[in-house]
Amino acid sequence: MGRLHATLFIIFLVFPFYLCSSLASVIATMRDLGKRGKLETEAGQCLNKSLVIKQLDVTQEDSVKKCLEEIPDQKVDILVNNAGIGQVGPIESISMEDAKKVFETNFFAVMRLIKMVLPAMKKRGSGHIVVISSVLGLQGIQVDFHSSPIPGFCESLAVQLLKFNIFISLIEPGPVNTEFEMKLMEEVSRSDFPGTDPETVRYFKELYLPSAHEIFVTLGQTPDAVAKATVKVIGMDQPVFRKQTNPLYTPLTALKYADNTGNLSVRTFYNLQFNYGSIFHFSLNLLRCITCNCFRRRVMPV
Amino acid sequence: MGRLHATLFIIFLVFPFYLCSSLASVIATMRDLGKRGKLETEAGQCLNKSLVIKQLDVTQEDSVKKCLEEIPDQKVDILVNNAGIGQVGPIESISMEDAKKVFETNFFAVMRLIKMVLPAMKKRGSGHIVVISSVLGLQGIQVDFHSSPIPGFCESLAVQLLKFNIFISLIEPGPVNTEFEMKLMEEVSRSDFPGTDPETVRYFKELYLPSAHEIFVTLGQTPDAVAKATVKVIGMDQPVFRKQTNPLYTPLTALKYADNTGNLSVRTFYNLQFNYGSIFHFSLNLLRCITCNCFRRRVMPV
Repeated sequence: MGRLHATLFIIFLVFPFYLCSSLASVIATMRDLGKRGKLETEAGQCLNKSLVIKQLDVTQEDSVKKCLEEIPDQKVDILVNNAGIGQVGPIESISMEDAKKVFETNFFAVMRLIKMVLPAMKKRGSGHIVVISSVLGLQGIQVDFHSSPIPGFCESLAVQLLKFNIFISLIEPGPVNTEFEMKLMEEVSRSDFPGTDPETVRYFKELYLPSAHEIFVTLGQTPDAVAKATVKVIGMDQPVFRKQTNPLYTPLTALKYADNTGNLSVRTFYNLQFNYGSIFHFSLNLLRCITCNCFRRRVMPV
Repeated sequence: MGRLHATLFIIFLVFPFYLCSSLASVIATMRDLGKRGKLETEAGQCLNKSLVIKQLDVTQEDSVKKCLEEIPDQKVDILVNNAGIGQVGPIESISMEDAKKVFETNFFAVMRLIKMVLPAMKKRGSGHIVVISSVLGLQGIQVDFHSSPIPGFCESLAVQLLKFNIFISLIEPGPVNTEFEMKLMEEVSRSDFPGTDPETVRYFKELYLPSAHEIFVTLGQTPDAVAKATVKVIGMDQPVFRKQTNPLYTPLTALKYADNTGNLSVRTFYNLQFNYGSIFHFSLNLLRCITCNCFRRRVMPV
């Protein structure tokens, strides 16, 4: 199995620069400050002025408390939840412990941060909570843990918080090309997926992984594109609840809800993966040609 | 806050009788065997013949292993995941620990059971996994933990498993009237929701709870209706992936996907709850009248 340690750093790398020019104070956080070098370089003259880097482990209650206490009046106007880890592999190869770790960061950390900033936002009668989610859960061609309780949780909360003039926005990128995702693919392709039968491993390595790689290379966005979409949502007077950043992914969502038995989407993905792999391959190549490879050029160099 | 301990028992109460007549062997499980009295009475002549009751705590690895080892050849043709707990209250009143407990039963237990039955199903090249989920996550007018990673997780898995002739079906009931749900409502209405500001508590008690109660009384199905729908799916040659058991709930799903910003659904629920409560109340009463109260009559006596 392979574990993906977060777009957190990568997106923050470009993220704060859209924000620091227009807002008074941006606090970019990372679990391991030892990795802040790139961020500091990119920050340039913003650093320690409109942009401050702080240590934060979103999975640790004390770390979140400490980080918030250091903010003057604990006043957070906009909270951007961007930390996330992933786990890719057949279900047989993913331990319960590893699955729980994914939820610790991807769901419980978001809940923890929202719980902590909410009382002050409610008192002030203003605030914006942004959660960077994923549409990979909708993709259906992989057994991963992007499948998330985040959208339902956020929608329920959005209804309640509107009364307090607090907005919640869900940013839903499709595949994003980051160093981490490339490393993950390499790592996963070397794994033996212990505990998994040979047939499943073969399907995973020979069918799933190459098609996933192809999707990333052809349709994958840059973190920069996701950051730009996010900043646009932050700038709205009445922020939208959902923003899918990759328009090429919207048809997949439609497929999912066009048939209320869910069979259409399950069987389409099944056929693409197991029966008509060559059509899938051809379509993506065609897409690459007619778009003059511009999707590919959007891939971040690794 | 209030905790709801599971439709597990209630649905199993009616569930096995649809099954035990047509299948060789049904194993109904419960966490606390002390509560099996009702089930045994209802089982009648099926008991210890085509229906066996076993102790199982789905959150405990050892308990699941022990239960499976007692099954001849560990041959499970159909696995029905029905255990579930709920948590209702403003987010401020729900501790991280309580939220994690909900996921232990509602998600990780499902994953654990699937992981355990899957190898034998794959070897045999047949099997059916049924997960009783909920559309309450789609409802949007409450901050609850029915919001679930289950649908995304199951869809990804369904694609992979079709290759092994294994089907996954997601049964999605709307509100179901059980003793537990009625007790929950009572319990929740008595709670002070510690840690929550008075305004939120007031909205929750004066607006959310009465409307939730009204929805359950007007639209709520009996556990029997959900069990019948489930048995129908189990009997299909090519089982559907999704089955919403309550047709009155389908428009809510449509609302959610009619507008890709998600604003339509968030604002509709917001207006129903905060601005046009009387219209909402009137609509439900009208529905109750024109359906000759037959929805109400479907409410289980408590």
